[in-house]
Amino acid sequence: MADAPFEKVALIGLGLIGSSLGHAMKRAGIASHIAGHARSKETLQTAIDIGFVDSVCEDMGKAVSGADLVILCVPVGICGSICEQIAPDLKQGAIVTDVGSVKAAIIADCERHIPAGVHFVPGHPMAGTEFSGPASGFAELFDSRWCLLTPLPDGDPLATQKLIEFWQACGANVETMTAQHHDVVAAITSHLPHLIAFNIVGTADDIEGVAEQEVIKYAAGGFRDFTRIAASDPTMWRDVFLHNKDAVLEVLERFNEDLGSLTKAIKQSDGDKLFEQFERTRHIRQNILDDESNQ
Amino acid sequence: MADAPFEKVALIGLGLIGSSLGHAMKRAGIASHIAGHARSKETLQTAIDIGFVDSVCEDMGKAVSGADLVILCVPVGICGSICEQIAPDLKQGAIVTDVGSVKAAIIADCERHIPAGVHFVPGHPMAGTEFSGPASGFAELFDSRWCLLTPLPDGDPLATQKLIEFWQACGANVETMTAQHHDVVAAITSHLPHLIAFNIVGTADDIEGVAEQEVIKYAAGGFRDFTRIAASDPTMWRDVFLHNKDAVLEVLERFNEDLGSLTKAIKQSDGDKLFEQFERTRHIRQNILDDESNQ
Repeated sequence: MADAPFEKVALIGLGLIGSSLGHAMKRAGIASHIAGHARSKETLQTAIDIGFVDSVCEDMGKAVSGADLVILCVPVGICGSICEQIAPDLKQGAIVTDVGSVKAAIIADCERHIPAGVHFVPGHPMAGTEFSGPASGFAELFDSRWCLLTPLPDGDPLATQKLIEFWQACGANVETMTAQHHDVVAAITSHLPHLIAFNIVGTADDIEGVAEQEVIKYAAGGFRDFTRIAASDPTMWRDVFLHNKDAVLEVLERFNEDLGSLTKAIKQSDGDKLFEQFERTRHIRQNILDDESNQ
Repeated sequence: MADAPFEKVALIGLGLIGSSLGHAMKRAGIASHIAGHARSKETLQTAIDIGFVDSVCEDMGKAVSGADLVILCVPVGICGSICEQIAPDLKQGAIVTDVGSVKAAIIADCERHIPAGVHFVPGHPMAGTEFSGPASGFAELFDSRWCLLTPLPDGDPLATQKLIEFWQACGANVETMTAQHHDVVAAITSHLPHLIAFNIVGTADDIEGVAEQEVIKYAAGGFRDFTRIAASDPTMWRDVFLHNKDAVLEVLERFNEDLGSLTKAIKQSDGDKLFEQFERTRHIRQNILDDESNQ
């Protein structure tokens, strides 16, 4: 693949996102060589066995050495320290990106470690499953999903353009926006729903007089959808909430106000208020379905 | 179908549940004649056109007249008044049941209207979709889903047994329990998840600086699962919350305590606490998956 847009791509982290990127790059023929790094030897072996990378390196510096594109596929909390470690080995002109669900905190952690002449373009593919690990990836994960890029104000437009084309080749639709705006959008559409799902599954486990076995048995009545979300990777989500604190706390506050008002309507047996709110959410759902059928 | 277990079954209400029951009864050959009643002439016409009933009656009394089994497939809030209206036309020995998502309130509303010699056996099939109306039903809706019956303490065991067999013939698994216990189980596994889903979809609509269009566009990041639940029938759910107030308020209180504690952990950047909670919910999810694969 001498004509591939990237000579060498380095994947740092080979979990669900890293392994899916490997598969998607192979499918697209977008990299002549994919080097993979992960902390555990077992993961490296699995990556080689499955074949979504061309080489693996126990040494992170070696993995990124000579790479045109370095993709950090690790929990949000360690991106900064990884940038610090790989900085000396980054090639001039290389693009460094990440896949973290929060962007302002990652920029704050990473930007200062990126050497002059290397382009840092933060990114967030909005795709995932409740599974994790190197065997959970698949080439189609990003197909028709959104990937949001949050280029730095003084970043190189050509590097951004190259990354847009990269994600499109991996199947995604791409939008660019500021990191601040991204973090609020993600807080509403993803972080709050996950927090609520984690919470409600925990609550169910706590109710007196009802055995956990009963909750599990009758989960199909609405609860099951929450458990799917709540099974997502705990480390990843811990880091998301620690690093998108302000936006999450802001939408949580609004959520609590709204829930307080619904609770009051139940307490006061205010059927009109309940109906009105339920009717309104149904309308939003319809818009989402219309949007999907237009894509 | 002279040998069908029921000579005549009357469906009062021909929405998602009523129409699905019609289809399921036809599939099972469980009734020689299915009579349907609904308030709107359009619904009656649709029911006849689709063919999940054998006859339709504008007059409710006529629909239940001579029926061995009368099934109220209407919102929880109007079950009592319907029992009052049909009482004079109920056949001696008939079974009257309902499909409401709350049970204690329905018993309080209905029991006093049921004539002596008629058996009232409350029920709750835990099945549904986000669609409603007579054209939304299908025979498989109850297959392998739970139907919870809450027989009255002084009820006729034979009537209960006959209703258990009816639901099994419609594809469901059946359990019996007290109405009080049912209402707490349903509050956790179904009512609270729905309330939260309605609420979070409304919250997303309120956040300043983020257009509704953006929430819709990026919904796949977790939010989408909530919108599906939040699209359920507003009238049905209004009635559920008005009639299962105590149990819902109780689990809501616990939910709020838990959410308060997660919020505090985010505010204090307490990663261990977040990780611990997320790990715990993942474990519950695993148990649900195990339970499903054992069925």
